Amino acid sequence: MQNKQVILAKRPFGLPDADTWSHQTSPVGIIEDGQMLVRHHYISLDPAMRGWLNDVRSYIPPVQVGDVMRAGSVGEIIDSKHDKFKVGDFVSGWGGVQQYSISDGKDWYKVDPSLAPLTTYIGTLGMPGMTAYFGILEVGKLKEGDIVLVSGAAGAVGSVVGQIAKIKGCTVIGIAGGAEKCAYLTDKLGFDAAIDYKNNDFKMALKTACPKGIDVFFDNVGGDILNIALTRLRMNARIVICGAISQYNNTTEVKGPSNYLSLLVNRASMQGMVVFDYAKDYQKAAMDMGTWMAEGKLLAKEDVYEGIENFHDTFMRLFSGKKLGKLILKVI
Amino acid sequence: MQNKQVILAKRPFGLPDADTWSHQTSPVGIIEDGQMLVRHHYISLDPAMRGWLNDVRSYIPPVQVGDVMRAGSVGEIIDSKHDKFKVGDFVSGWGGVQQYSISDGKDWYKVDPSLAPLTTYIGTLGMPGMTAYFGILEVGKLKEGDIVLVSGAAGAVGSVVGQIAKIKGCTVIGIAGGAEKCAYLTDKLGFDAAIDYKNNDFKMALKTACPKGIDVFFDNVGGDILNIALTRLRMNARIVICGAISQYNNTTEVKGPSNYLSLLVNRASMQGMVVFDYAKDYQKAAMDMGTWMAEGKLLAKEDVYEGIENFHDTFMRLFSGKKLGKLILKVI
Repeated sequence: MQNKQVILAKRPFGLPDADTWSHQTSPVGIIEDGQMLVRHHYISLDPAMRGWLNDVRSYIPPVQVGDVMRAGSVGEIIDSKHDKFKVGDFVSGWGGVQQYSISDGKDWYKVDPSLAPLTTYIGTLGMPGMTAYFGILEVGKLKEGDIVLVSGAAGAVGSVVGQIAKIKGCTVIGIAGGAEKCAYLTDKLGFDAAIDYKNNDFKMALKTACPKGIDVFFDNVGGDILNIALTRLRMNARIVICGAISQYNNTTEVKGPSNYLSLLVNRASMQGMVVFDYAKDYQKAAMDMGTWMAEGKLLAKEDVYEGIENFHDTFMRLFSGKKLGKLILKVI
Repeated sequence: MQNKQVILAKRPFGLPDADTWSHQTSPVGIIEDGQMLVRHHYISLDPAMRGWLNDVRSYIPPVQVGDVMRAGSVGEIIDSKHDKFKVGDFVSGWGGVQQYSISDGKDWYKVDPSLAPLTTYIGTLGMPGMTAYFGILEVGKLKEGDIVLVSGAAGAVGSVVGQIAKIKGCTVIGIAGGAEKCAYLTDKLGFDAAIDYKNNDFKMALKTACPKGIDVFFDNVGGDILNIALTRLRMNARIVICGAISQYNNTTEVKGPSNYLSLLVNRASMQGMVVFDYAKDYQKAAMDMGTWMAEGKLLAKEDVYEGIENFHDTFMRLFSGKKLGKLILKVI
C-alpha cells in the first residue's frame, strides 16, 4: 500500500511557490505494538501553517526541510495494535499532508461521524473552532452588549468568533474580502454588518459600521486593518491577537501597529493566544458548540478541495482569499 | 500682586521651540466665596505635557492656544474663602505653569511638608509615583520573582517602578541614557542591572542582561526599545504601556512595534494605563510609598531648576535626557 506525501522541500521567502514542496510516494509501513494506522480522509489547511515554514523560535518548532508537512487531519483507523484505538474508529490528530500516518495515538482523539460530518472535526469542532471559542470568550473577555469587530470574518476562526458573539448578545461587525463573503456574513451568519476591505475606504467604512467604537477586536489579519481598528477602541477595549495573515508572506519587516498608543489613551489591552493552552477544556467547548450547531445557532461552513497533488494550489487560497469558510483538502 | 504665566502660543510640530510659548504677567486677581489663592512653589514637568499640546482626542483635552500651560504644582494657600482649605495650608493640584492660581479647590489636596519635602508631593508621592505604583502592581500584575525591565528607568516614573519591583522581590533591569544614570540605578537604587541604550548594541545588551527573558516590561519610551523588548518576552509576559517619549516629538508616523506577534507566540499582553483611573486608591498608595521612603527602601530624587522664565529650557530636558529623576521647576 502506497502513501502519497507532501514534503517541505525548501523554506519559502515570501509567498510559497510550487517548489516549496516535493511530492513523494512511499510504502505505508507496518505498525508495531502500541501503534495505529490512520487513513486520512481530510487535511486541515490553516494560515498558521505558513508560520511553521519559517526557521524561527515560535509556539511550536518549525517543520524541518525533508519532513512531511505538518497538518491537522481526520480519518479512519484501518489497522491497530493500540489498546485505546480500534480499527473502524474515526480519529483526528496531527497526521500531516499525506494519505496515511502511523502513530502511537498521542494527541489523537476519537470523533463521531454520526454527530457531525468528519470535516467539522477539523473545522468548527476542531482547532479553528476551539481557537474562536477560547479566543473570544477567555482572551477577549466577551460580555453581553459588547461591540465586537472580527477580521478574517468569513474564515474558519473568524466566522465562529462572530457567531459566538451573536449568541452571547453582542453587536458584531465582520471584515472580509469581497461582496460574496460580506453577504454571507450578514445574510447567513447574522452579523450586524460586514466591511469589504477590498472595496472600501476601510477607515471610513469602519467608522460608519462602528460609530460608537469597539469593545473587542478579534484580529486574524494584522497590518493596516489592525492599525486602523486601534483608532476606534472604546475604553477598556480588548484586542485578541490570533494571527496576522496579511503579514505572513512579507519579504520585509512586519508592519507594526503605529497607533498602539491608543491602548494607553483607552486603557485597552492587546493579548496574544495559542489554542493549545486550552486543551484541558476542549471537551466543554465542543459540547457548547455542538449544542449551538444542533440548535441551528452556529453554522459550520467548509470549503473542500480534492487531491493531495493539489495541496499547493489549495493552500494558496488561504492567502488569495479564494475560499469561503474552513479550507480543507480531501485526500482519499 | 503680579502673576508670571506661561501661555501656549502655538502648537508645536515636532520638538517644541521657544516660540511655542509666550510669557505674560497679569494681576493675580481677587478670590470670591468658595475660592482659594495658591502661591505655587514648584511646578511638575512631565513627558505627558507634550501630548497635551496636540489637538487630538486623548485621555484629557488638549491645552488650548492662549491658555496657561497645564501642569501639576505644589504650593501654599495665601488667601482663602474656602471652607476646606485655609491660609497656610500646603496643597497640590493642577495649578499650571504660573506663579499663582485661583481655584475652587476641585482636584486639589492638602500635603504635609513636615512628612516629606514639598517637591516629593509632585514626584514620588504625586502623579509619577502613583503611575509607577498602579502601573507595575495593577497593570503589570507584578509577582515575586518576576524579571522586570523598565525603560526611562532613571526618570520620575521608571525609578519608582524599579524600586517597587525590588521591594517586591523581583529582578530588575533598567534602561537609561548615559553612564551616570546607569550607575545611579545600580549603585543608588539597587537595580540588578542597567543598560545604557546610547552606548550599546541595545539588542545584544538586553539579551545579556535578561538571558532568561522578561516577565514584565514597563515602557515609558516606545520605538526601538519597545520593539526589541518584545523579542525577549517570556510566556505570559505583561507589557505596561505608560508612555512613549521617543515618539512624542515625531514629525512622521509613530514607529509601531513590528515584533508585536511575539505577544501571540508568548501568550503575552500589552496594556495601556492612565493614572487618573486609580484616584480612589491614591491614599493607600501614598501610605505604602511613604512607609517605604521612611524605611529607606524607596529613594525620591528630584532635579530642580529655578525660574518660570526658564520653563522652556527646563521642559526640553525631558527630551534631551539632561536631568536625573523627577524634573521640577521652582517658580517662587
